[in-house]
Amino acid sequence: MRNRFATLAWMVRGFCMVRLSYTELDNLKVKMASSAFHKGALTWWNSEKNTRGREVTLALPWEGFKNLHVEQFCPRHELKKLEVEIRNLVQDSGKSAKYTTRFHELCILVPHLVTPLSCRIEKYIEGLPLVIRGTVMGTAVAWGAGQALTVEEVEVSPPQPSEIRIKVVSTSLCRSDVTAWLSQAQPPLFPRIFGHEASGIVESVGEEVSEFVESDHVLALFIGECMSCKQCVSSKKSNTCQQLGLERKGVMHSDQKTRFFIKGKPIYHYCAVSSFSEYTVVHSGCAVKITKDAPLQKVCLLSCGTAAGLGAAWNVANVSKGSTVAIFGLGTVGLSVAQGAKIRGASRIIGVDTNPEKKEKAKAFGVTDFINPNETEETVQQVLTFFLFIKLCMLMLVVMFQIIKRMTDGGVDYSFECIGDTEMVTTALQSSCDGWGVTVTLGVPKTKPDVTAHYGLFLTGRTLKGSLFGGWKPKSDVPSLIDMYLKGVAMLALACYLNEVRSRGI
Amino acid sequence: MRNRFATLAWMVRGFCMVRLSYTELDNLKVKMASSAFHKGALTWWNSEKNTRGREVTLALPWEGFKNLHVEQFCPRHELKKLEVEIRNLVQDSGKSAKYTTRFHELCILVPHLVTPLSCRIEKYIEGLPLVIRGTVMGTAVAWGAGQALTVEEVEVSPPQPSEIRIKVVSTSLCRSDVTAWLSQAQPPLFPRIFGHEASGIVESVGEEVSEFVESDHVLALFIGECMSCKQCVSSKKSNTCQQLGLERKGVMHSDQKTRFFIKGKPIYHYCAVSSFSEYTVVHSGCAVKITKDAPLQKVCLLSCGTAAGLGAAWNVANVSKGSTVAIFGLGTVGLSVAQGAKIRGASRIIGVDTNPEKKEKAKAFGVTDFINPNETEETVQQVLTFFLFIKLCMLMLVVMFQIIKRMTDGGVDYSFECIGDTEMVTTALQSSCDGWGVTVTLGVPKTKPDVTAHYGLFLTGRTLKGSLFGGWKPKSDVPSLIDMYLKGVAMLALACYLNEVRSRGI
Repeated sequence: MRNRFATLAWMVRGFCMVRLSYTELDNLKVKMASSAFHKGALTWWNSEKNTRGREVTLALPWEGFKNLHVEQFCPRHELKKLEVEIRNLVQDSGKSAKYTTRFHELCILVPHLVTPLSCRIEKYIEGLPLVIRGTVMGTAVAWGAGQALTVEEVEVSPPQPSEIRIKVVSTSLCRSDVTAWLSQAQPPLFPRIFGHEASGIVESVGEEVSEFVESDHVLALFIGECMSCKQCVSSKKSNTCQQLGLERKGVMHSDQKTRFFIKGKPIYHYCAVSSFSEYTVVHSGCAVKITKDAPLQKVCLLSCGTAAGLGAAWNVANVSKGSTVAIFGLGTVGLSVAQGAKIRGASRIIGVDTNPEKKEKAKAFGVTDFINPNETEETVQQVLTFFLFIKLCMLMLVVMFQIIKRMTDGGVDYSFECIGDTEMVTTALQSSCDGWGVTVTLGVPKTKPDVTAHYGLFLTGRTLKGSLFGGWKPKSDVPSLIDMYLKGVAMLALACYLNEVRSRGI
Repeated sequence: MRNRFATLAWMVRGFCMVRLSYTELDNLKVKMASSAFHKGALTWWNSEKNTRGREVTLALPWEGFKNLHVEQFCPRHELKKLEVEIRNLVQDSGKSAKYTTRFHELCILVPHLVTPLSCRIEKYIEGLPLVIRGTVMGTAVAWGAGQALTVEEVEVSPPQPSEIRIKVVSTSLCRSDVTAWLSQAQPPLFPRIFGHEASGIVESVGEEVSEFVESDHVLALFIGECMSCKQCVSSKKSNTCQQLGLERKGVMHSDQKTRFFIKGKPIYHYCAVSSFSEYTVVHSGCAVKITKDAPLQKVCLLSCGTAAGLGAAWNVANVSKGSTVAIFGLGTVGLSVAQGAKIRGASRIIGVDTNPEKKEKAKAFGVTDFINPNETEETVQQVLTFFLFIKLCMLMLVVMFQIIKRMTDGGVDYSFECIGDTEMVTTALQSSCDGWGVTVTLGVPKTKPDVTAHYGLFLTGRTLKGSLFGGWKPKSDVPSLIDMYLKGVAMLALACYLNEVRSRGI
């Protein structure tokens, strides 16, 4: 099978993908023509909620934003106009002191960019965990570390034994895609097709596949479940399948080869999902069948981000009623952790983020206290007095855990590092209390892969745990999460959570 | 009160303390005169078990061994002979290639030196967790980092409100005493009286003390329990009392002053216990009353080493039946962990130590597989082929976890770092399995206080915990441990453990 070339998809330098129906495109154009792009985007977002059922895909990492440039588009006469608008925006932003603000507002539309993985706090990105709908028509191929993705005509092999081919319906951009694209946490592996959070419909099945049939609705899974290895069959809850665990070589688990080709040349996979493609092939153990009642556009998030945050609070930390919680980084994952902790009855949920606009937004997800490290009195005072010799960045980490310890009489019961910064893991550990403090780290760091912490933090009773996909067994647990979502508002926790998102018109 | 000057105690350079009755002293002299010192010591040990009720204190860290020198003794005519023997030994050892072996055998008599805290594996020390009986007559005072302790006449203040004064009956040397004496993990604080594992009899009580009366039998506690702070009253089991936790300033918790003086000059405490003294003063929250049926010489170990090891397996790791365990360092603590894991029904207990003689001895404590990093085939092969550029020390750590992962199909369920080496913590983490691997660190490192580990180890499901005093609440839990010991051999775990020691004639 060959993916059709994009008809309404285009790539800009960096990592931008947008897909809109004609209606929305017209709508967007009108708005953009009449206002600054960020305002236009927000307006479009507001108007879009009244046109349910229409598709939209939007993903713009900040790294590529400055070099925004339309490379491929169709129909040309339509996109030509949009191209002009985008170019204008970039030129305008380049001159404007309000560039950052504009970008923050724009990113409200981009769910997975909200996780501030950068070690520099000024790079934190604004956002809310919203659902991206739609998919790329064609395949977005990354050709080198940090190089612009292009939409290509890619040959997608038929599914081999124990594999299925999926038509991707919804996919999202996760910060780990960007990290891998920039080759910051992993060695370069190009050309490559990114994307690991996706929903879709089974197009065809390979031999030995009895679990799926054509037209089944599925979520792709970046960690699979073979149901037979030591990890999968253990009574101890584990989601690190020995056979279908996190794939790092850019190939399929079964034969260490790829299923993507351009003119015969193999294209690497990413996490054995590669959902930035109209069609993809995954191992049948790396997909889970879901009810057709579940809207693929919404439950897409349950294949990575939202599930990861909720599971970290429920499965890994096992947050208890009345406990205190600190969350470092209020992106999609951090806000999902907050929501999970709120549902568990945590008495105090302290959110830490450098973006002041998060303060109000985070409340809806359960955050009771908001700390902006840039705005604490201690920061100012102590910089001027005692800590001039410490880097400002380090200072803020020090101040932050001191504030939290003071707020909570010695530290929180649970702390979560949702940034992907190993220095923040240390701060999270320091912010937890003696005796029973539990720290959970969820992120993939771009730099400094080693976690470092003084032995005394452990000796005085702290525990450090990691959370991959929230500790959920991907095939066994996800259907129940879907059920929870479908069963409505009040009764079930996840439904409550996703309805909170839905109430925002997404 | 003034401690009497030692009549049968003496100090040698380094950290040697020996107290014997006349009978044992004669016995020892005879043996030493007739054979090499290490053989003499062993013989003496064997004969000593037939003279129950006699006192002996022996503690010799290896650091001081080479500079062995008798400084103080009484009666002079007796010790003069012994001094000659010891000098001969040192001279002999200096020339002999068998020095190390001799020292290893000697250290069978030294319980707490068995924990190999040194980061250099060639410094691992042989030993078994035996009970030291007897106490120093007088007070052993450390005057500077690494400087010889001397026995001094020290004024011990009366107990202040909420304090008790104890006549120390048994005390042990723990490796953390040596670490602090060398100022390797803490800033220098001298002059100081070390010792934090002790049993004794209440000599007098201060005001506001209703829990103890004169002649009560007690164990001193290096971490106390105030029974009223957030940590003590929490339903979450914690032993890190906010009021009487680990004391690091060398003073009493209540008024930040000392209770020891020499000619009016204050002498610092250690861990608010300072049991290398005939009498000491502790906060009433830092002692626990025990039944007079419990032999103070034996249960002394329950105030630190043995309890720490058993508790790490039972409380902190919560080792489950049929699980696999790896223990790094088979000293007192490591062997206690092994025993705890064995009692819990662990199916495989892998012990790692560089001392080949540990292989047989560790079996009695439950170790099923013994790894000597110095003797693995991989070490030899890989040093010669691939890893010439890696330091040998680092290489051994790498090889070790690879061997353990291969032995256990991916790693053990629980790993314990019982050395006090933060690099070994990393190795222990690497040796544990994906999904649910738990690593517990118990030691106080002499160097490199920071634990460093790749974030991926956590993300794939590992947990790192610390264990201080095995997670036992010191006042609340120790009496039940004493009960377990007293109730005999078969029925109760701890009795089983200590009877294993007893069966060795100690």
